[in-house]
Amino acid sequence: MTVYLVGAGPGDPVLLTTRALQLIAAADVIVYDRLIPAEALAGARAGAELIYAGKQGGGVSADQDEIERLLVDFGSAGGTVVRLKGGDPFVFGRGGEEAEALAEAGVPFEIVPGVTAGVAAPAYAGIPVTHRDAASAVALVTGHEDPSKPEPAVDWEALAVFPGTLVVYMGIRRLDAITERLIAAGRSPREPAAVIERGTLPDQRVIEGTLETIAATAASE
Amino acid sequence: MTVYLVGAGPGDPVLLTTRALQLIAAADVIVYDRLIPAEALAGARAGAELIYAGKQGGGVSADQDEIERLLVDFGSAGGTVVRLKGGDPFVFGRGGEEAEALAEAGVPFEIVPGVTAGVAAPAYAGIPVTHRDAASAVALVTGHEDPSKPEPAVDWEALAVFPGTLVVYMGIRRLDAITERLIAAGRSPREPAAVIERGTLPDQRVIEGTLETIAATAASE
Repeated sequence: MTVYLVGAGPGDPVLLTTRALQLIAAADVIVYDRLIPAEALAGARAGAELIYAGKQGGGVSADQDEIERLLVDFGSAGGTVVRLKGGDPFVFGRGGEEAEALAEAGVPFEIVPGVTAGVAAPAYAGIPVTHRDAASAVALVTGHEDPSKPEPAVDWEALAVFPGTLVVYMGIRRLDAITERLIAAGRSPREPAAVIERGTLPDQRVIEGTLETIAATAASE
Repeated sequence: MTVYLVGAGPGDPVLLTTRALQLIAAADVIVYDRLIPAEALAGARAGAELIYAGKQGGGVSADQDEIERLLVDFGSAGGTVVRLKGGDPFVFGRGGEEAEALAEAGVPFEIVPGVTAGVAAPAYAGIPVTHRDAASAVALVTGHEDPSKPEPAVDWEALAVFPGTLVVYMGIRRLDAITERLIAAGRSPREPAAVIERGTLPDQRVIEGTLETIAATAASE
Protein backbone atom coordinates (compact mmCIF):
# COMPACT_ATOMS: atom_id res chain seq x y z
CA MET A 1 0.00 0.00 0.00
CA THR A 2 1.40 3.30 -1.13
CA VAL A 3 -0.06 6.64 -2.19
CA TYR A 4 1.77 8.13 -5.17
CA LEU A 5 1.59 11.89 -5.58
CA VAL A 6 2.13 12.07 -9.33
CA GLY A 7 2.73 15.04 -11.60
CA ALA A 8 0.82 14.68 -14.88
CA GLY A 9 2.62 17.54 -16.61
CA PRO A 10 1.26 20.78 -18.03
CA GLY A 11 -1.47 19.47 -20.34
CA ASP A 12 0.02 17.97 -23.50
CA PRO A 13 -0.36 14.23 -22.81
CA VAL A 14 2.99 13.39 -24.46
CA LEU A 15 4.65 15.25 -21.59
CA LEU A 16 3.63 12.60 -19.06
CA THR A 17 6.62 10.63 -17.75
CA THR A 18 7.09 6.89 -18.05
CA ARG A 19 6.77 6.63 -14.26
CA ALA A 20 3.42 8.45 -14.27
CA LEU A 21 2.06 6.18 -17.02
CA GLN A 22 3.27 3.04 -15.19
CA LEU A 23 1.56 4.09 -11.98
CA ILE A 24 -1.68 5.10 -13.73
CA ALA A 25 -1.78 1.64 -15.33
CA ALA A 26 -1.15 -0.07 -11.98
CA ALA A 27 -3.50 2.02 -9.83
CA ASP A 28 -6.50 0.63 -7.95
CA VAL A 29 -7.67 4.17 -7.19
CA ILE A 30 -6.88 7.41 -9.03
CA VAL A 31 -7.80 10.74 -7.45
CA TYR A 32 -7.37 13.34 -10.20
CA ASP A 33 -7.45 17.09 -10.66
CA ARG A 34 -9.34 19.31 -13.06
CA LEU A 35 -6.43 19.98 -15.41
CA ILE A 36 -5.31 16.39 -15.97
CA PRO A 37 -5.13 15.41 -19.67
CA ALA A 38 -8.05 13.09 -20.49
CA GLU A 39 -5.58 10.83 -22.30
CA ALA A 40 -3.77 10.23 -19.02
CA LEU A 41 -6.79 8.51 -17.51
CA ALA A 42 -7.26 6.34 -20.60
CA GLY A 43 -4.32 4.29 -19.35
CA ALA A 44 -6.07 3.22 -16.17
CA ARG A 45 -6.83 -0.49 -15.89
CA ALA A 46 -10.39 -1.80 -16.18
CA GLY A 47 -12.00 -1.70 -12.76
CA ALA A 48 -9.85 1.08 -11.35
CA GLU A 49 -11.77 3.59 -9.28
CA LEU A 50 -11.45 7.12 -10.72
CA ILE A 51 -12.32 10.00 -8.40
CA TYR A 52 -12.56 13.58 -9.61
CA ALA A 53 -11.18 16.01 -7.06
CA GLY A 54 -11.02 19.09 -9.26
CA LYS A 55 -11.36 22.41 -7.58
CA GLN A 56 -12.17 25.60 -9.39
CA GLY A 57 -9.81 28.56 -8.94
CA GLY A 58 -11.67 29.93 -5.96
CA GLY A 59 -12.13 26.62 -4.15
CA VAL A 60 -12.24 26.82 -0.39
CA SER A 61 -9.90 25.01 1.94
CA ALA A 62 -12.49 22.42 2.98
CA ASP A 63 -12.06 20.79 -0.44
CA GLN A 64 -8.38 20.31 0.22
CA ASP A 65 -9.08 18.78 3.64
CA GLU A 66 -11.48 16.36 2.02
CA ILE A 67 -8.93 15.36 -0.62
CA GLU A 68 -6.39 14.69 2.12
CA ARG A 69 -8.94 12.61 4.03
CA LEU A 70 -9.70 10.61 0.86
CA LEU A 71 -6.01 9.90 0.28
CA VAL A 72 -5.47 8.80 3.87
CA ASP A 73 -8.58 6.58 3.79
CA PHE A 74 -7.76 4.91 0.48
CA GLY A 75 -4.09 4.67 1.39
CA SER A 76 -4.91 3.00 4.72
CA ALA A 77 -7.23 0.55 2.99
CA GLY A 78 -4.32 -0.79 0.93
CA GLY A 79 -3.79 -1.11 -2.78
CA THR A 80 -2.10 1.33 -5.11
CA VAL A 81 -3.46 4.85 -4.88
CA VAL A 82 -2.43 7.49 -7.42
CA ARG A 83 -3.05 11.14 -6.70
CA LEU A 84 -2.75 12.67 -10.17
CA LYS A 85 -2.00 16.37 -10.21
CA GLY A 86 -1.42 18.91 -12.98
CA GLY A 87 2.22 19.85 -13.58
CA ASP A 88 4.49 18.92 -10.69
CA PRO A 89 3.09 17.97 -7.27
CA PHE A 90 5.47 20.25 -5.35
CA VAL A 91 5.21 23.36 -7.54
CA PHE A 92 1.98 25.03 -6.37
CA GLY A 93 0.35 21.60 -6.44
CA ARG A 94 -0.31 21.42 -2.69
CA GLY A 95 1.58 18.14 -2.74
CA GLY A 96 3.43 19.30 0.36
CA GLU A 97 0.22 19.42 2.35
CA GLU A 98 -0.95 16.05 1.03
CA ALA A 99 2.40 14.47 1.82
CA GLU A 100 2.20 15.86 5.36
CA ALA A 101 -1.31 14.48 5.86
CA LEU A 102 -0.15 11.04 4.70
CA ALA A 103 2.96 11.14 6.88
CA GLU A 104 0.92 12.11 9.93
CA ALA A 105 -1.46 9.21 9.29
CA GLY A 106 1.43 6.77 8.82
CA VAL A 107 0.52 6.05 5.19
CA PRO A 108 3.56 5.40 2.95
CA PHE A 109 3.79 7.76 0.01
CA GLU A 110 6.07 8.62 -2.87
CA ILE A 111 6.45 11.78 -4.97
CA VAL A 112 6.71 11.50 -8.76
CA PRO A 113 7.86 14.82 -10.25
CA GLY A 114 6.33 16.12 -13.47
CA VAL A 115 7.05 18.72 -16.12
CA THR A 116 5.90 22.02 -14.67
CA ALA A 117 3.80 24.45 -16.73
CA GLY A 118 5.93 27.47 -15.84
CA VAL A 119 8.81 26.02 -17.82
CA ALA A 120 6.88 24.03 -20.46
CA ALA A 121 4.35 26.64 -21.58
CA PRO A 122 7.04 29.26 -22.32
CA ALA A 123 9.05 26.58 -24.15
CA TYR A 124 6.05 25.79 -26.38
CA ALA A 125 5.83 29.54 -27.02
CA GLY A 126 9.54 29.65 -27.94
CA ILE A 127 10.55 31.56 -24.80
CA PRO A 128 13.58 30.29 -22.85
CA VAL A 129 13.08 31.07 -19.14
CA THR A 130 16.83 31.21 -18.65
CA HIS A 131 19.48 32.26 -21.13
CA ARG A 132 23.22 32.60 -20.69
CA ASP A 133 23.20 36.19 -21.97
CA ALA A 134 19.90 37.33 -20.52
CA ALA A 135 18.70 35.53 -17.38
CA SER A 136 20.77 33.41 -15.00
CA ALA A 137 17.77 32.74 -12.77
CA VAL A 138 14.03 32.11 -13.03
CA ALA A 139 11.42 32.51 -10.31
CA LEU A 140 8.21 30.50 -10.23
CA VAL A 141 5.50 32.36 -8.33
CA THR A 142 1.82 31.74 -7.70
CA GLY A 143 -0.59 34.47 -8.76
CA HIS A 144 -3.45 32.68 -7.04
CA GLU A 145 -3.02 33.39 -3.40
CA ASP A 146 -4.64 31.62 -0.51
CA PRO A 147 -8.18 33.04 -0.21
CA SER A 148 -8.31 31.94 3.44
CA LYS A 149 -5.38 34.16 4.39
CA PRO A 150 -6.04 37.75 5.46
CA GLU A 151 -2.87 39.16 3.87
CA PRO A 152 -1.46 38.46 0.42
CA ALA A 153 1.27 35.82 0.74
CA VAL A 154 3.23 36.94 -2.31
CA ASP A 155 5.64 39.82 -1.75
CA TRP A 156 5.52 41.51 -5.16
CA GLU A 157 7.84 44.27 -4.01
CA ALA A 158 10.57 41.74 -3.21
CA LEU A 159 9.88 39.90 -6.47
CA ALA A 160 10.27 43.11 -8.49
CA VAL A 161 14.02 43.13 -7.76
CA PHE A 162 14.47 39.45 -8.63
CA PRO A 163 17.49 39.19 -10.96
CA GLY A 164 15.94 37.05 -13.68
CA THR A 165 12.74 35.86 -15.34
CA LEU A 166 9.49 35.90 -13.35
CA VAL A 167 6.92 33.20 -14.15
CA VAL A 168 3.52 33.72 -12.52
CA TYR A 169 1.23 30.70 -12.36
CA MET A 170 -2.52 31.25 -12.38
CA GLY A 171 -1.99 34.98 -12.67
CA ILE A 172 -4.48 35.79 -15.42
CA ARG A 173 -7.29 37.06 -13.18
CA ARG A 174 -4.98 39.43 -11.35
CA LEU A 175 -2.83 40.43 -14.33
CA ASP A 176 -3.56 44.16 -13.97
CA ALA A 177 -2.73 44.26 -10.28
CA ILE A 178 0.39 42.11 -10.63
CA THR A 179 1.95 44.13 -13.45
CA GLU A 180 1.09 47.42 -11.71
CA ARG A 181 2.67 46.33 -8.44
CA LEU A 182 5.81 45.06 -10.14
CA ILE A 183 6.23 48.35 -12.03
CA ALA A 184 5.48 50.43 -8.92
CA ALA A 185 8.19 48.46 -7.10
CA GLY A 186 10.75 49.30 -9.76
CA ARG A 187 10.54 46.58 -12.40
CA SER A 188 11.06 48.13 -15.82
CA PRO A 189 7.75 48.78 -17.64
CA ARG A 190 9.58 48.07 -20.91
CA GLU A 191 10.70 44.60 -19.87
CA PRO A 192 9.48 41.95 -22.35
CA ALA A 193 6.45 40.05 -21.06
CA ALA A 194 4.10 37.36 -22.31
CA VAL A 195 0.77 35.91 -21.27
CA ILE A 196 0.17 32.23 -22.02
CA GLU A 197 -3.20 30.55 -21.64
CA ARG A 198 -3.89 26.83 -22.00
CA GLY A 199 -0.14 26.26 -22.21
CA THR A 200 1.08 23.23 -24.24
CA LEU A 201 -2.48 22.45 -25.45
CA PRO A 202 -3.45 22.64 -29.14
CA ASP A 203 -5.35 25.89 -28.49
CA GLN A 204 -2.53 27.51 -26.50
CA ARG A 205 -2.83 31.32 -26.67
CA VAL A 206 0.27 33.51 -26.44
CA ILE A 207 0.28 37.28 -26.17
CA GLU A 208 3.60 39.11 -26.20
CA GLY A 209 4.38 42.66 -25.20
CA THR A 210 5.97 44.49 -22.32
CA LEU A 211 5.21 44.52 -18.61
CA GLU A 212 3.42 47.85 -19.14
CA THR A 213 1.25 46.80 -22.08
CA ILE A 214 0.58 43.12 -21.55
CA ALA A 215 -2.50 43.40 -19.32
CA ALA A 216 -4.29 45.78 -21.71
CA THR A 217 -3.29 43.71 -24.75
CA ALA A 218 -4.49 40.48 -23.13
CA ALA A 219 -7.81 42.10 -22.18
CA SER A 220 -8.41 43.44 -25.70
CA GLU A 221 -7.67 40.25 -27.64
CA MET B 1 13.95 17.88 -41.29
CA THR B 2 13.70 19.20 -37.78
CA VAL B 3 16.07 19.51 -34.84
CA TYR B 4 14.39 18.63 -31.55
CA LEU B 5 15.89 20.14 -28.41
CA VAL B 6 14.73 17.51 -25.93
CA GLY B 7 14.87 17.47 -22.14
CA ALA B 8 15.83 14.02 -20.83
CA GLY B 9 14.93 14.80 -17.23
CA PRO B 10 17.11 14.81 -14.12
CA GLY B 11 18.64 11.33 -14.31
CA ASP B 12 16.12 8.67 -13.28
CA PRO B 13 15.18 7.18 -16.68
CA VAL B 14 11.52 6.74 -15.69
CA LEU B 15 11.27 10.53 -15.64
CA LEU B 16 11.69 10.77 -19.42
CA THR B 17 8.51 11.92 -21.15
CA THR B 18 6.61 9.98 -23.80
CA ARG B 19 7.53 12.66 -26.32
CA ALA B 20 11.25 12.33 -25.55
CA LEU B 21 11.09 8.53 -25.94
CA GLN B 22 9.19 8.83 -29.24
CA LEU B 23 11.75 11.22 -30.66
CA ILE B 24 14.73 9.14 -29.48
CA ALA B 25 13.21 6.13 -31.23
CA ALA B 26 12.64 8.12 -34.44
CA ALA B 27 15.98 9.96 -34.56
CA ASP B 28 18.54 9.59 -37.33
CA VAL B 29 21.06 11.52 -35.26
CA ILE B 30 21.22 12.01 -31.47
CA VAL B 31 23.60 14.58 -30.02
CA TYR B 32 23.66 13.90 -26.27
CA ASP B 33 25.04 15.41 -23.09
CA ARG B 34 27.12 13.95 -20.31
CA LEU B 35 24.29 13.56 -17.80
CA ILE B 36 21.81 11.72 -20.04
CA PRO B 37 20.57 8.42 -18.55
CA ALA B 38 22.18 5.53 -20.45
CA GLU B 39 18.75 3.90 -20.65
CA ALA B 40 17.52 6.83 -22.72
CA LEU B 41 19.90 6.01 -25.54
CA ALA B 42 18.91 2.33 -25.49
CA GLY B 43 15.71 3.38 -27.25
CA ALA B 44 17.54 4.65 -30.34
CA ARG B 45 16.89 2.73 -33.55
CA ALA B 46 19.54 0.52 -35.09
CA GLY B 47 21.72 2.62 -37.36
CA ALA B 48 21.08 5.91 -35.60
CA GLU B 49 24.17 8.07 -35.25
CA LEU B 50 24.92 8.84 -31.60
CA ILE B 51 27.24 11.77 -30.91
CA TYR B 52 28.57 12.53 -27.44
CA ALA B 53 28.73 16.27 -26.80
CA GLY B 54 29.31 16.16 -23.06
CA LYS B 55 31.18 19.02 -21.57
CA GLN B 56 32.78 18.92 -18.17
CA GLY B 57 31.84 21.64 -15.70
CA GLY B 58 34.65 23.94 -16.77
CA GLY B 59 34.16 23.48 -20.51
CA VAL B 60 35.08 26.47 -22.62
CA SER B 61 32.72 28.27 -24.96
CA ALA B 62 34.28 26.81 -28.09
CA ASP B 63 32.60 23.49 -27.24
CA GLN B 64 29.21 25.16 -27.27
CA ASP B 65 29.94 26.78 -30.64
CA GLU B 66 30.89 23.39 -32.00
CA ILE B 67 27.68 21.79 -30.71
CA GLU B 68 25.67 24.53 -32.38
CA ARG B 69 27.58 24.03 -35.63
CA LEU B 70 26.91 20.27 -35.44
CA LEU B 71 23.18 20.84 -34.94
CA VAL B 72 22.98 23.29 -37.83
CA ASP B 73 24.94 20.93 -40.13
CA PHE B 74 22.93 17.82 -39.28
CA GLY B 75 19.68 19.79 -39.31
CA SER B 76 20.44 21.23 -42.74
CA ALA B 77 21.29 17.79 -44.09
CA GLY B 78 17.76 16.60 -43.32
CA GLY B 79 16.42 13.74 -41.25
CA THR B 80 15.36 13.80 -37.63
CA VAL B 81 17.96 15.24 -35.28
CA VAL B 82 17.51 14.98 -31.52
CA ARG B 83 19.59 17.15 -29.23
CA LEU B 84 19.22 15.33 -25.90
CA LYS B 85 19.93 17.45 -22.85
CA GLY B 86 19.80 16.79 -19.12
CA GLY B 87 16.74 18.17 -17.32
CA ASP B 88 14.89 20.79 -19.32
CA PRO B 89 16.49 22.44 -22.39
CA PHE B 90 15.55 25.98 -21.30
CA VAL B 91 16.54 25.75 -17.61
CA PHE B 92 20.31 26.28 -17.64
CA GLY B 93 20.47 23.91 -20.59
CA ARG B 94 21.74 26.46 -23.10
CA GLY B 95 18.78 25.50 -25.24
CA GLY B 96 18.14 29.19 -25.84
CA GLU B 97 21.48 29.59 -27.56
CA GLU B 98 21.05 26.42 -29.62
CA ALA B 99 17.56 27.50 -30.68
CA GLU B 100 18.96 30.87 -31.75
CA ALA B 101 21.71 29.26 -33.80
CA LEU B 102 19.14 27.04 -35.56
CA ALA B 103 16.79 29.96 -36.18
CA GLU B 104 19.60 32.05 -37.66
CA ALA B 105 20.54 29.20 -39.97
CA GLY B 106 16.92 28.70 -41.02
CA VAL B 107 16.76 25.16 -39.60
CA PRO B 108 13.33 24.24 -38.19
CA PHE B 109 13.43 23.22 -34.53
CA GLU B 110 11.12 22.28 -31.71
CA ILE B 111 11.56 22.39 -27.92
CA VAL B 112 10.49 19.38 -25.82
CA PRO B 113 10.40 20.34 -22.13
CA GLY B 114 11.63 17.92 -19.49
CA VAL B 115 11.45 17.43 -15.74
CA THR B 116 14.02 19.79 -14.25
CA ALA B 117 16.43 18.62 -11.56
CA GLY B 118 15.80 21.63 -9.32
CA VAL B 119 12.27 20.45 -8.70
CA ALA B 120 12.75 16.66 -9.04
CA ALA B 121 15.81 16.16 -6.84
CA PRO B 122 14.22 17.92 -3.85
CA ALA B 123 11.03 15.90 -4.44
CA TYR B 124 13.03 12.64 -4.30
CA ALA B 125 14.50 13.94 -1.05
CA GLY B 126 11.00 14.68 0.30
CA ILE B 127 11.42 18.46 0.11
CA PRO B 128 8.57 20.47 -1.46
CA VAL B 129 10.04 23.56 -3.16
CA THR B 130 6.78 25.42 -2.62
CA HIS B 131 4.29 25.00 0.20
CA ARG B 132 1.13 26.92 0.93
CA ASP B 133 2.23 27.71 4.48
CA ALA B 134 5.94 28.18 3.86
CA ALA B 135 6.94 29.28 0.35
CA SER B 136 4.75 30.83 -2.31
CA ALA B 137 7.65 31.10 -4.75
CA VAL B 138 10.75 29.19 -5.81
CA ALA B 139 13.80 30.54 -7.63
CA LEU B 140 15.98 28.38 -9.86
CA VAL B 141 19.49 29.78 -10.08
CA THR B 142 22.71 28.60 -11.66
CA GLY B 143 25.71 28.22 -9.36
CA HIS B 144 27.97 27.59 -12.33
CA GLU B 145 28.55 30.94 -13.88
CA ASP B 146 29.92 31.70 -17.29
CA PRO B 147 33.71 31.34 -17.06
CA SER B 148 34.12 33.58 -20.11
CA LYS B 149 32.49 36.53 -18.36
CA PRO B 150 34.65 38.92 -16.33
CA GLU B 151 32.01 39.57 -13.66
CA PRO B 152 29.78 37.04 -11.90
CA ALA B 153 26.38 37.00 -13.62
CA VAL B 154 24.42 35.92 -10.55
CA ASP B 155 23.42 38.70 -8.17
CA TRP B 156 23.50 36.87 -4.85
CA GLU B 157 22.66 40.03 -2.94
CA ALA B 158 19.39 40.40 -4.86
CA LEU B 159 18.69 36.67 -4.48
CA ALA B 160 19.15 36.87 -0.71
CA VAL B 161 15.89 38.85 -0.40
CA PHE B 162 13.94 36.48 -2.64
CA PRO B 163 10.66 35.67 -0.87
CA GLY B 164 10.75 31.89 -1.21
CA THR B 165 12.87 28.80 -1.76
CA LEU B 166 16.23 29.17 -3.55
CA VAL B 167 17.38 26.21 -5.67
CA VAL B 168 20.98 26.47 -6.89
CA TYR B 169 21.95 24.20 -9.79
CA MET B 170 25.56 23.07 -10.08
CA GLY B 171 26.42 24.94 -6.91
CA ILE B 172 28.45 22.27 -5.10
CA ARG B 173 31.89 23.58 -5.99
CA ARG B 174 31.05 27.08 -4.80
CA LEU B 175 28.90 26.07 -1.84
CA ASP B 176 31.03 27.95 0.71
CA ALA B 177 31.03 31.19 -1.25
CA ILE B 178 27.33 31.00 -2.12
CA THR B 179 26.13 30.41 1.45
CA GLU B 180 28.47 33.10 2.80
CA ARG B 181 27.27 35.68 0.30
CA LEU B 182 23.61 34.90 0.95
CA ILE B 183 24.09 35.25 4.70
CA ALA B 184 26.16 38.43 4.32
CA ALA B 185 23.32 39.87 2.23
CA GLY B 186 20.79 39.18 4.95
CA ARG B 187 19.45 35.69 4.37
CA SER B 188 18.91 33.99 7.73
CA PRO B 189 21.78 31.65 8.68
CA ARG B 190 19.22 29.45 10.44
CA GLU B 191 17.11 28.92 7.34
CA PRO B 192 16.75 25.21 6.52
CA ALA B 193 19.04 24.11 3.70
CA ALA B 194 19.91 20.90 1.89
CA VAL B 195 22.60 19.75 -0.51
CA ILE B 196 21.61 17.08 -3.03
CA GLU B 197 24.11 15.26 -5.21
CA ARG B 198 23.26 12.84 -8.03
CA GLY B 199 19.60 13.80 -7.63
CA THR B 200 16.98 11.14 -8.54
CA LEU B 201 19.68 8.48 -9.11
CA PRO B 202 19.92 5.34 -6.94
CA ASP B 203 22.97 6.77 -5.17
CA GLN B 204 21.42 10.20 -4.55
CA ARG B 205 23.09 11.86 -1.55
CA VAL B 206 21.15 14.32 0.62
CA ILE B 207 22.62 16.44 3.40
CA GLU B 208 20.27 18.57 5.47
CA GLY B 209 21.08 21.43 7.79
CA THR B 210 20.89 25.19 7.80
CA LEU B 211 22.31 27.81 5.47
CA GLU B 212 25.06 28.41 8.03
CA THR B 213 26.08 24.77 8.55
CA ILE B 214 25.41 23.09 5.24
CA ALA B 215 28.73 23.82 3.53
CA ALA B 216 30.80 22.49 6.45
CA THR B 217 28.53 19.46 6.86
CA ALA B 218 28.72 18.63 3.15
CA ALA B 219 32.51 18.93 3.20
CA SER B 220 32.89 16.65 6.24
CA GLU B 221 30.63 13.81 5.04
